[in-house]
Amino acid sequence: MPRGIPLLKDELDIVIPTIRNLDFLEMWRPFFEPYHLIIVQDGDPSKTINVPDGFDYELYNRNDINRILGPKASCISFKDSACRCFGYMVSKKKYIFTIDDDCFVGKDPSGKPINALEQHIKNILSPSTPFFFNTLYDPFREGADFVRGYPFSLREGVPTAVSHGLWLNIPDYDAPTQLVKPRERNTRYVDMVLTIPKGTLFPMCGMNLAFDRHLIGPAMYFGLMGDGQPIGRYDDMWAGWCTKVICDHLNLGVKTGLPYIFHSKASNPFVNLKKEYKGIFWQEDIIPFFQAVTLPKECTTVQECYIELSKQVKEKLSKVDPYFDKLADAMVTWIEAWDELNPAGAAVANGKA
Amino acid sequence: MPRGIPLLKDELDIVIPTIRNLDFLEMWRPFFEPYHLIIVQDGDPSKTINVPDGFDYELYNRNDINRILGPKASCISFKDSACRCFGYMVSKKKYIFTIDDDCFVGKDPSGKPINALEQHIKNILSPSTPFFFNTLYDPFREGADFVRGYPFSLREGVPTAVSHGLWLNIPDYDAPTQLVKPRERNTRYVDMVLTIPKGTLFPMCGMNLAFDRHLIGPAMYFGLMGDGQPIGRYDDMWAGWCTKVICDHLNLGVKTGLPYIFHSKASNPFVNLKKEYKGIFWQEDIIPFFQAVTLPKECTTVQECYIELSKQVKEKLSKVDPYFDKLADAMVTWIEAWDELNPAGAAVANGKA
Repeated sequence: MPRGIPLLKDELDIVIPTIRNLDFLEMWRPFFEPYHLIIVQDGDPSKTINVPDGFDYELYNRNDINRILGPKASCISFKDSACRCFGYMVSKKKYIFTIDDDCFVGKDPSGKPINALEQHIKNILSPSTPFFFNTLYDPFREGADFVRGYPFSLREGVPTAVSHGLWLNIPDYDAPTQLVKPRERNTRYVDMVLTIPKGTLFPMCGMNLAFDRHLIGPAMYFGLMGDGQPIGRYDDMWAGWCTKVICDHLNLGVKTGLPYIFHSKASNPFVNLKKEYKGIFWQEDIIPFFQAVTLPKECTTVQECYIELSKQVKEKLSKVDPYFDKLADAMVTWIEAWDELNPAGAAVANGKA
Repeated sequence: MPRGIPLLKDELDIVIPTIRNLDFLEMWRPFFEPYHLIIVQDGDPSKTINVPDGFDYELYNRNDINRILGPKASCISFKDSACRCFGYMVSKKKYIFTIDDDCFVGKDPSGKPINALEQHIKNILSPSTPFFFNTLYDPFREGADFVRGYPFSLREGVPTAVSHGLWLNIPDYDAPTQLVKPRERNTRYVDMVLTIPKGTLFPMCGMNLAFDRHLIGPAMYFGLMGDGQPIGRYDDMWAGWCTKVICDHLNLGVKTGLPYIFHSKASNPFVNLKKEYKGIFWQEDIIPFFQAVTLPKECTTVQECYIELSKQVKEKLSKVDPYFDKLADAMVTWIEAWDELNPAGAAVANGKA
């Protein structure tokens, strides 16, 4: 990789949820082949998923998840890309990059294929600046810096836990917007990365996302979605709200912007509307809840924060719908399962290892 | 102007602080000629400032300021570009665009000259979204929208009070950064506008700035700088901190990003270091002060907010340096002078006109 960006090939897993053959990997071969892939097969476990030759991977279907987690498998969604978070849990690496199988290699304005993973690595390995806005955006990028009036005491920044990438072509719209603007395409390449300020929530999309498992992994639970649940397509949103609140509490950074992937295919807006309906409705209560959440000082690990958050979800959101009672329980199960599979990871997340 | 952007030529004044002939206006002629200019002459009032033919302008020197404001002229800085805020006060228009005389017309990546004023007008006339971050940035821009997971109740946005533009070529760095990176140039054109989230402060630069006088004018006080003061080059920063805190309180938006101007000339870093020294030092206390400020609900006009802020400055920052005691008094004088010159404007700012 250019300019001395570390490849991190022994420290990063690529997690891909899928229900189909992974032909899209051919396009990513120059960028992904050095890495280990964790494929989480959703839907019918008897179906065979073809993975192009030459990739190093492990694949888990529903039977594997049930076998590995036992009764705790109940916290992993079925028939929804939320199942991807199982991959975060079984990874043994420090970093995760997760990508959808309808995400292709984008091109920058000069026509050069975008190495999305390299940009995520740049984002994650440079600090974030959540406490004050820098008007020239990421000050750690080459050719940029902190502008006049940026306090010197804040220029060290904080560790970056999350790098949220964007999408050319099909934008990540909800079903109503898809229906209203069926032909809208994102063609604007905004050459920029920024830290989302402390105290500000954002809609985190799981299509093109990287994070530091050791710093924030246990917060990256994608919730209960899909089969048997009243809601879908809010898995990444749920993870984003929880993650941002915990990052803010622990003084960790979340960056958004570059890299772009090329999102090839809009999902069916009618199907999406059905999945999203309750989410669109509930988020009007959920977001004020997350905007108001405060975590006690005593919570110093992601796990402690997440368990505390599950209690507040149960207390405050169960009255919105009994679903949140079930979700709060699943949040606890998720942490138990995480710690079971990551006995050392728990200590690392503590910052006490 | 293209795409039906209103010109606002009877509703916008261009405010320019200067100590020299305004030859730079030649370059801006196609864009600025329809507008009225308010030129605030800094320094020696006996000097004649040449303005190229064909521009409609009024010019105020120190003698004019003293004559118009009487003893209240003490709140207007001398020998510092902070004097520009006198122009905001005497304007009779709804919108202000202010620009420095070393700011030239920039070019977009296609080589087309950038009509900075048109972009500011676009920014100001479309709503802001301070309560939740939109990952595709300004959702009101053509080709963009709110992404999945953005609460529908927040999609109306709030009125935009401030549009903060950026600089190609010489970035707005402080003296230490100028000294360390004398050759750094900003060549990155980031094709983007975003709302600075509620609760987040930013370093507001006065070089290329537009705002709605009726919504936020009385907060745009550029403080006591330059001649007889222990500090310079923090005039716009001071205005930015006060403005952002008041916008947050009144649910008004602040946007930053496009438009770019071409900043032609770096000021002398050694001179700047002398001017900035105390600011660099004091901002470590000032910024936590502004981050913690809360304004009481009873403050519903910009003037009320600003007077309340002056009290808190006196109470909390005077212990940092006696300068802030003087500044707090000047803040009150500024509001008195503003209301004297804008008897109707006060009511408009109240939202009670």
